[in-house]
Amino acid sequence: TFDIEHIDTEILKKLEDEGHKIFPSPRVLEKIQDKLVQNQILEKNGLPLPKFREVEDPSQLLESLQNFNYPVVQKARTGGYDGKGVVILKNENDLQNAIKAESLLEECIEIEKELAVNIAQNSKGEIKVHQVVEMTFDEKTNICDLVIGPAQISKEHEDKAIQIAKDVLKALGEGAYGNFAIEMFLTKDGEILVNEVAPRPHNSGHYTIEACITSQFEQHIRAITGLPLGSTKLHSPTVMKNLLGPENYTGPVKFEESEELLKIEGLSVHLYGKDLSKPFRKLGHITILDKDIESALKKAEEAKNIIEKYSKQ
Amino acid sequence: TFDIEHIDTEILKKLEDEGHKIFPSPRVLEKIQDKLVQNQILEKNGLPLPKFREVEDPSQLLESLQNFNYPVVQKARTGGYDGKGVVILKNENDLQNAIKAESLLEECIEIEKELAVNIAQNSKGEIKVHQVVEMTFDEKTNICDLVIGPAQISKEHEDKAIQIAKDVLKALGEGAYGNFAIEMFLTKDGEILVNEVAPRPHNSGHYTIEACITSQFEQHIRAITGLPLGSTKLHSPTVMKNLLGPENYTGPVKFEESEELLKIEGLSVHLYGKDLSKPFRKLGHITILDKDIESALKKAEEAKNIIEKYSKQ
Repeated sequence: TFDIEHIDTEILKKLEDEGHKIFPSPRVLEKIQDKLVQNQILEKNGLPLPKFREVEDPSQLLESLQNFNYPVVQKARTGGYDGKGVVILKNENDLQNAIKAESLLEECIEIEKELAVNIAQNSKGEIKVHQVVEMTFDEKTNICDLVIGPAQISKEHEDKAIQIAKDVLKALGEGAYGNFAIEMFLTKDGEILVNEVAPRPHNSGHYTIEACITSQFEQHIRAITGLPLGSTKLHSPTVMKNLLGPENYTGPVKFEESEELLKIEGLSVHLYGKDLSKPFRKLGHITILDKDIESALKKAEEAKNIIEKYSKQ
Repeated sequence: TFDIEHIDTEILKKLEDEGHKIFPSPRVLEKIQDKLVQNQILEKNGLPLPKFREVEDPSQLLESLQNFNYPVVQKARTGGYDGKGVVILKNENDLQNAIKAESLLEECIEIEKELAVNIAQNSKGEIKVHQVVEMTFDEKTNICDLVIGPAQISKEHEDKAIQIAKDVLKALGEGAYGNFAIEMFLTKDGEILVNEVAPRPHNSGHYTIEACITSQFEQHIRAITGLPLGSTKLHSPTVMKNLLGPENYTGPVKFEESEELLKIEGLSVHLYGKDLSKPFRKLGHITILDKDIESALKKAEEAKNIIEKYSKQ
């Protein structure tokens, strides 16, 4: 298996042809790696998506833009992550910031909430779904700030999001075994649109380590080895917060606030053991379990204040 | 720190004297290692214990027995574990099976339930207690079979068990930092007596990995490093079952039932990676989380049947 999608599928396909088992199959990864191809396949399979179109030639960006109203989202076809490879073009002046690589344009959705569903399928076709969660993003960096579970949405939207996740898995076809994160938009109009698919354990599912009987990581291993999938039951409401490198610091990772953070009841700290702190680099995360989301969010705010206090020292 | 108590405290004390931090302190370990010393210290500190006495000389066992009525429990002073180092003398004929090493005798308690409390203290004196659990033992091997949490006992007994655990920690004195398991008897008369103390994460606390916000292992690390202790909140009723080597088999560990076990909703499998299976050797455990203990126990029974089926193959 793999834990990043920016890898060489030609080599993986060769290994698969030689008889090695690679899950998710590189044939599935190929459908996801290129965001234009991903959108085209999902559209062909009837999934709801923001309006999009290919920018065939970067020099013809202006022409491609004619089908959209500003603001427009421009996405690099490959290689993007954590807000990188995505720009929002608000008007013609923003064209100087446009992506020069191969890209696509998407209509800018009026978003009520961003949702994510972690769904797993094993090689026997068994499917299990973790609860629908909300993701909030930092406006400046466009990096995921919080994941809130369960998502505070109607039962109808919840059911729809889960159905969409199942349909995405189906659209990816044979060999889509493992944990998949499906990111979605709940629009102001109450529609749910697919945003992006990740063929692996995902930031939106880190909360499952503490909050669920089976974590996304265990589920992924069960899925790719053909074992029965585990219970996705949630123990209690939860909030996950990413720990990013401070804005004005590049150097060895310092994380002196751990002790103070661990005083918060129900809070767990995960540090990824990275050596180098860079502005907004993901260095770890915290997960909070609490009796309700309101209390968990208060603790996340408390944690944020502690982190900010230390980052100024 | 250490994860077994049968180790050389002289070396550890030398290291401590040289300035190394060892938690729990070897001075605390010394008080626990020798079961006679353990009992004497607990008795001196007012803790309730079964009646006991030293067998000063193995050849004078008969004389020592005069203070007791059969059946009597004989325990080796050091080195016992998992039912080893303990014999029950039911009558004079059993004397041929008596322990020849240094030992003590204990009155044989009429037991209603065996209980355990996992309690942790950090170097700042903070103390947190995991719930009281019940342990059931295999009659033949005297090895722990199930751990059931929370213990099905009265609130009064629960409070008393927790108070006893705190008093034991106090009796162990300076340097009792880490996770401690205190095993107790709830007698048919409704009394709670201390059976044994383990200065480490313990079989009775394995369930905490899945069932609690903070596992006994994380708690131990928090405690010995002086970090704030974590929440001991239980997510749901739980049953842990030990996986032992089959009775009639010595050889490489086979564990082909994992896949079938994992089909049981809410069941997690832990295998310890040991190479060699021996009769009744602990090779792993399973933990079941469920809505109530009755359902969890049913699943443990189901698991037992699966394990027995495979052990006969």
